[in-house]
Amino acid sequence: MLISIINVGNEVLDGDVLNSNAQFLSKELYQMGHEIKFHSVCQDGFDDILSVLKFFTKASDLIILTGGLGPTEDDMTKEVLADFLNRKLVKNDDVLLDIKNKFKKFNSKMTENNIKQAYVIEDAKILFNKKGTAPGFILESVKCNYILLPGPPREMKYLFDEYIRDYLKDDKSSKIQSRIIKIDGVGESTVASEINDLIQQKNIYVATYAKMGEVKVKLSTTQPSDILDFTKNEIIKRFKKNIISYSEKETYISLCEHLIQNNISISTAESCTGGLLASKIVENPGISKIYFGSFITYSNDMKSETLGVNKASLREHGAVSEMVAREMILGLYEKTKTDICVAITGIAGPNGGTKEKPVGLVYIAFKIFEDIFVIENNFRGNRNEIRERSVNKVFNVLSKKLIIDN
Amino acid sequence: MLISIINVGNEVLDGDVLNSNAQFLSKELYQMGHEIKFHSVCQDGFDDILSVLKFFTKASDLIILTGGLGPTEDDMTKEVLADFLNRKLVKNDDVLLDIKNKFKKFNSKMTENNIKQAYVIEDAKILFNKKGTAPGFILESVKCNYILLPGPPREMKYLFDEYIRDYLKDDKSSKIQSRIIKIDGVGESTVASEINDLIQQKNIYVATYAKMGEVKVKLSTTQPSDILDFTKNEIIKRFKKNIISYSEKETYISLCEHLIQNNISISTAESCTGGLLASKIVENPGISKIYFGSFITYSNDMKSETLGVNKASLREHGAVSEMVAREMILGLYEKTKTDICVAITGIAGPNGGTKEKPVGLVYIAFKIFEDIFVIENNFRGNRNEIRERSVNKVFNVLSKKLIIDN
Repeated sequence: MLISIINVGNEVLDGDVLNSNAQFLSKELYQMGHEIKFHSVCQDGFDDILSVLKFFTKASDLIILTGGLGPTEDDMTKEVLADFLNRKLVKNDDVLLDIKNKFKKFNSKMTENNIKQAYVIEDAKILFNKKGTAPGFILESVKCNYILLPGPPREMKYLFDEYIRDYLKDDKSSKIQSRIIKIDGVGESTVASEINDLIQQKNIYVATYAKMGEVKVKLSTTQPSDILDFTKNEIIKRFKKNIISYSEKETYISLCEHLIQNNISISTAESCTGGLLASKIVENPGISKIYFGSFITYSNDMKSETLGVNKASLREHGAVSEMVAREMILGLYEKTKTDICVAITGIAGPNGGTKEKPVGLVYIAFKIFEDIFVIENNFRGNRNEIRERSVNKVFNVLSKKLIIDN
Repeated sequence: MLISIINVGNEVLDGDVLNSNAQFLSKELYQMGHEIKFHSVCQDGFDDILSVLKFFTKASDLIILTGGLGPTEDDMTKEVLADFLNRKLVKNDDVLLDIKNKFKKFNSKMTENNIKQAYVIEDAKILFNKKGTAPGFILESVKCNYILLPGPPREMKYLFDEYIRDYLKDDKSSKIQSRIIKIDGVGESTVASEINDLIQQKNIYVATYAKMGEVKVKLSTTQPSDILDFTKNEIIKRFKKNIISYSEKETYISLCEHLIQNNISISTAESCTGGLLASKIVENPGISKIYFGSFITYSNDMKSETLGVNKASLREHGAVSEMVAREMILGLYEKTKTDICVAITGIAGPNGGTKEKPVGLVYIAFKIFEDIFVIENNFRGNRNEIRERSVNKVFNVLSKKLIIDN
């Protein structure tokens, strides 16, 4: 099914928030086999919403609108769609009762404005919203169907999971299958040029995406899976030693799931990344089983007092050195005795770089069971890009060693 | 100036990446006083790009297109715009030389495809790109102007900073002024209803945005600043004790800048947030001057071994308790002696909650100079929302105590 997504609201247009609703919906719908035709964001204005609606209706089988279902005068998505489809808005007693009950439950006063939320476009299917006062709607028409969802991500996701997933799951008309191959240590243009023959193939779409220290190759097709498997195997042959993951999921998630499933314990010590590594690990539910914790030894004092890094090593080699990375990991292992230990020390900038040790120089020490080694990296980018690349490198190395090479 | 933004590329439509280019451009342009009319994302297809281009040209003074300037056949933004404006594409020797030099510098082979990138729409101003091979362009026409920028955020931002900021800075036609007031501890609907009279005022736009534990009120106007100041003062009167910041910047950034400027040292200890607090702090350049580090004591063993939390307290009160939070902060201060210490212990879920201690229960202990106190919180949301709300609460409390109340 060809789907377009419209987000109504000024906060995305002013740059205050990222359009995470559009990403969530696109990802879910794409994985269900649908094709996303357009995204658009428009202001809370009658004419603006109407013009995008008209434009997308020509190009889509289904339009999902989020936002503009609230109680204020600015909220008019429902009103515009009713006008466009020439349908009436009628007060719905079930919705009104539902809203009243919510205000009672939270002991807050229902305003006159909230009654507006009980108006429903005729013939719409109502999606009752447990997470807020604005219900969602599904409207079917001859040319195109419409789904209206509230703007707050929590409410939008709730209604999607509760109603929309089911409503759209039966579409087999354009079932897209895909495969993922993630590569570390080769630039995107090199990957693209070395698989140019595969990109040129008919009946399969091969795309490369560069992302902070990894190139993701995505293969998609609506054809039988032979062409997928052939293309995937060809890419594996060409980049064997650089492949770090085949997972649809982000590498830090697939790696942490692997650690949890296999009961492999881990602990970390971080300097320049300052908790970013720990935080990514702790994002994963169930991690407490195997994650002991981290020492964020940002200052030199903390490096020696907490991890027992030699003051002489700090003086002679500097905090950012292979020696200190090695001592950090030994100190960490001494404290935690986990199967895997990782220690990071580097210069994230923007200040602190020298000719010998430029911004972006990052040493990462690994202890993977009995195996201890240190990787020297020269990452480019600004402060937070360097921190992110450092953390991604950790997950890439662990994913390769523990999942791919095993 | 009325500006619309078009992003060309499948990766946003497939939900693989967030549309961070649109956010970056919107935020920058909004702050320069421009009004953003529409965003759109379309596939790499001639007809799709053309139809959005036509649609937006009617509604905008300027359209910024990102993406589709690469060397492959999929990349056709330039070609579509030339066709739409009835202009020719001509090979430009300066651009070709620039591309050749880049390949030489990186010791990689220039492909036949890259020559495509040296073609330029006639009469376009060329934006030479130091971060990649695709140049950007500015095209002026009677009805509407166009800016073409490459899709990779690094390159897009580079060209924006280098050329676009200057090109667009002189627009005084719709200078928008704005003020920000951030409120913690009051729900968005309550804020909105208590300032409804202010929202109804003419000549000023008052919007509320709810965001993980804070409500941001944004006032914007093109009128003299009296109405801004009047409205801001009214809101301050009504929410005095809940205001945590007036900064345009995110609270964690304005707070860390305050700490650095005033040389106030800080250290942290985290359990359920697992490094998220440390990581947000370390995002700020120059923080090494005042940030000592963090102990991510995720396991109970680490809590007692590293921070000296009493094993009896852990047994009798549980790791998530006011007592343990208090002992964590004393242990932390013992090790770091910083002006400010923060310790967090809580249940982020999805598992581990009980009737007495549900998921979302988070204790945060503060030591702000001589003052020690513990806040008990019951956050809602999923695992990562609870972690994010916990960290935001820390910055909100510190911002209120150190900046607002001072």
